[in-house]
Amino acid sequence: MRVLIIGGGGMIGQKVARRLAADAALAGAPVEEIILHDIVEPPAVAAPFAVTRLTGDIAEPAEATRLAALRADIVYHLAAIVSGEAERDFDKGWTVNGHGIWRLLEAVRAVGGGYRPRFVFTSSIAVFGAPFPDAIPDDFFATPLTSYGAQKAIGELLVGDYSRKGFIDGLSLRLPTVCVRPGRPNRAASSFFSGIIREPLNGQEAILPVPDTVRHWFASPRSTAGFLVHAAGLDTARLGGRRALTMPGLSCTVAEQIAALRDVAGEDVTRLIRFEPDAEIAAIVAGWPRNFDAARARELGFAAESDFHEIIRVYVDEELGWS
Amino acid sequence: MRVLIIGGGGMIGQKVARRLAADAALAGAPVEEIILHDIVEPPAVAAPFAVTRLTGDIAEPAEATRLAALRADIVYHLAAIVSGEAERDFDKGWTVNGHGIWRLLEAVRAVGGGYRPRFVFTSSIAVFGAPFPDAIPDDFFATPLTSYGAQKAIGELLVGDYSRKGFIDGLSLRLPTVCVRPGRPNRAASSFFSGIIREPLNGQEAILPVPDTVRHWFASPRSTAGFLVHAAGLDTARLGGRRALTMPGLSCTVAEQIAALRDVAGEDVTRLIRFEPDAEIAAIVAGWPRNFDAARARELGFAAESDFHEIIRVYVDEELGWS
Repeated sequence: MRVLIIGGGGMIGQKVARRLAADAALAGAPVEEIILHDIVEPPAVAAPFAVTRLTGDIAEPAEATRLAALRADIVYHLAAIVSGEAERDFDKGWTVNGHGIWRLLEAVRAVGGGYRPRFVFTSSIAVFGAPFPDAIPDDFFATPLTSYGAQKAIGELLVGDYSRKGFIDGLSLRLPTVCVRPGRPNRAASSFFSGIIREPLNGQEAILPVPDTVRHWFASPRSTAGFLVHAAGLDTARLGGRRALTMPGLSCTVAEQIAALRDVAGEDVTRLIRFEPDAEIAAIVAGWPRNFDAARARELGFAAESDFHEIIRVYVDEELGWS
Repeated sequence: MRVLIIGGGGMIGQKVARRLAADAALAGAPVEEIILHDIVEPPAVAAPFAVTRLTGDIAEPAEATRLAALRADIVYHLAAIVSGEAERDFDKGWTVNGHGIWRLLEAVRAVGGGYRPRFVFTSSIAVFGAPFPDAIPDDFFATPLTSYGAQKAIGELLVGDYSRKGFIDGLSLRLPTVCVRPGRPNRAASSFFSGIIREPLNGQEAILPVPDTVRHWFASPRSTAGFLVHAAGLDTARLGGRRALTMPGLSCTVAEQIAALRDVAGEDVTRLIRFEPDAEIAAIVAGWPRNFDAARARELGFAAESDFHEIIRVYVDEELGWS
């Protein structure tokens, strides 16, 4: 089994690579090689098989051909311009997130000779736009309110049609907000959902820009890597031609996040969270989904945390080494 | 008001042009010019204003720039490779129906100088794929089972995002099956829905390839032209960012179609319909939507027939000249 991870230098790509290194198998077969591809050289991953690291820009037309020519058995397409940047730079977002996946699928199709990889595309809950029902059902329509969301929804449609025609065997996974993200805060509007847990656990102050009544949809990095691993081995005949799946997650409020942090790490740690309202962030967050049914994905064996305590423990276990 | 109709040589484009010629106004303003564009020269339309006819291929990259440079106030984008052909010729379908609309939107955006036309895109109920609820609600997801349906769903997402960003003021109308289509039978699997009415009314035999229990979703050519006219003047602020609309229509069975034909034209005429089962057509039709709620579009003032007798009378009135 040869596995190509496009966007292999990112947080999720690295988590998947390390999981495969630990399992040494994917979709019921031994892994022989992982190819990590990203726009800057991906970090090395220690593994009992070959790990190849490639650098390139999927916005370049020739790059798709180069990647398809690798004839990987499983292609993970995680590379994307993130939501905020795609909103600020319309051309860049559409070039990478729109034309990028289209060119990649065309290049895979052009390989020919019966090549038909399992193709796992990471979509996003950003395909949905408010107003929402309390829990968004699996058959709810995609009405994105960002270019990023529109680009992901188009990627899903392309993966669906190229799969139906037999050029790939694909599926699209709409990921929850990944929490607790390791590393530093970033400028994403969602950054605080991880920050209010991560920073206090590291003895640092965190800013909470929204009221603690805000509800959101989460999965840990470990569960997210688990979705991608599970997708590689799924019997896609079970999808009935509906190849985009909302992944399971945990719907909880900021107050519930903080209560779980208190239980895991104590009252003093939660005192490091400072409420500093930010109307702009509050407005953005108000347009985001809060809760999903995700029954289809659960029935297909995808699993996530059911309690925010577990999500914190995953962070402590994987990133801090105490638990 | 200058109006560009891309696909202006087709049946719907011509109906819209003749309706505008009769009204001499659109969206509350006088029409000064209609520009009909198609891949072969569109038929002439007599009108109390200028009617310009252009020929070109929207699959050619330069054609989008040429069309955008016309700076029409209202752009109707009706041009498409039809469902069956897009399914047989994957490249042609994606080039015209996918890249075609994208290039057109990019060309409009590139005009600059505050140019922001009303952009009306004809989508299709082919964005939906079985299985369906009894009546498909407005918030039902798009899971197309044809390349044509995927291309239309992508067009909707592009129209949505280019509108949200202020490059156009667009909306997408998902048209019902247009019935009774004038002219000759074609090779579309849906051709018989019109054929079983049109051919008998013209004294000719018609083949019915499916059982008369089959239910489908119809609007007359007159109502369809009416949707397009109404869309030109609609206050798009009322769409709340959800710019794709399932148009109203009439859900009825083939038996109800035939009963209405009997009422309008007599028993002898219906005897010209011969049942000759075709398993292939029956299988295709089984995957099609049968009924919609379409509440949003009705609330926004779009209107269609509520009885198949009316649909037959529109054909008799517009095409046969007796009624």
